Amino acid sequence: MDLLKRRIVQDGTEVGTEVVKVDSFLNHQLDIGLFMAIGKEIHRRFAHLGINKILTIESSGIAIAAITSMYFDLVPVVFAKKTQPNTMSDDFYGASVKSFTKGTVSIARVAKQYLKETDKVLIIDDFLAHGEAAMGLCSLVEQAGGTVCGIAAVIEKEFQGGSARLREAGYHVDSLAVITKIENGHITFKD
Amino acid sequence: MDLLKRRIVQDGTEVGTEVVKVDSFLNHQLDIGLFMAIGKEIHRRFAHLGINKILTIESSGIAIAAITSMYFDLVPVVFAKKTQPNTMSDDFYGASVKSFTKGTVSIARVAKQYLKETDKVLIIDDFLAHGEAAMGLCSLVEQAGGTVCGIAAVIEKEFQGGSARLREAGYHVDSLAVITKIENGHITFKD
Repeated sequence: MDLLKRRIVQDGTEVGTEVVKVDSFLNHQLDIGLFMAIGKEIHRRFAHLGINKILTIESSGIAIAAITSMYFDLVPVVFAKKTQPNTMSDDFYGASVKSFTKGTVSIARVAKQYLKETDKVLIIDDFLAHGEAAMGLCSLVEQAGGTVCGIAAVIEKEFQGGSARLREAGYHVDSLAVITKIENGHITFKD
Repeated sequence: MDLLKRRIVQDGTEVGTEVVKVDSFLNHQLDIGLFMAIGKEIHRRFAHLGINKILTIESSGIAIAAITSMYFDLVPVVFAKKTQPNTMSDDFYGASVKSFTKGTVSIARVAKQYLKETDKVLIIDDFLAHGEAAMGLCSLVEQAGGTVCGIAAVIEKEFQGGSARLREAGYHVDSLAVITKIENGHITFKD
């Protein structure tokens, strides 16, 4: 998705060897016009799969998932929570998710009534790096007996191996901007 | 907003004396069609104020803010973070926010470059109860020298005093569904 790649190059900051910061448009300040283009493109790539639910994880995936739902006939969006709110009963599916950047492990939780056997789920997240969050979300869907139809990441850091792991596990992964290398402040995209 | 009130009565669960749970459409599973109606209604009520930014706090406000931005000519959305991500520098505005339901205090943070003197801000949140989160978000805007034009909550629990406190402090508050009483499983709305 060229619009997105250009934006990453133009506005990405603090480009290290493993990190590019996209706080100005993707995960702290949000450019909703760009999100609409992202939602439309995700729909173009996944429209044929009969998706009837979108699953993401708080917080950065939520806005992308919400906007994308509009292009999928307003299918329900569910976001997994990383902490157990006092309003959530004990009746939830849980999967442990390791954060490589934070060095922490959290439990992604979805209340059981929001994932069903009949669900054909598109998993959406802002970043795909080591694939831990996506793998955890797949586990939640499968615990409920539902089907993971695909995984859409906005930005994939292919060199961190997440998409390879997910494809080895049999999942359909398609990311809008695939970064193969970050070196000396220069970002290399696939294609 | 009648559509919303009907939905709260129809799908709200675990109605106690202070709580109504709206997980099935507002803050765990999200009904994006309803969010579009909410965004349109927020625009109707706040359109005349020259708003050029929307501010919310993770996680439940994010999707509402994102969808609402579409009705405000795609003004940028910024969400305050409750934890300091490793990608956030120390250059942020912070305000402590007490959660009455969780009994915890967290720091709401926005990186300084995303709040400016020229900002005319609409603050959006899912619930307005004691008003702590909204008060903290107002503080962030004012630390930056910006203007709080209004505060829009989807559901206000008026009996918990948040809107009164905010109005005493001089803020314009307008909530889409105002609950005056929750008693014996029955919800009473204003008007």
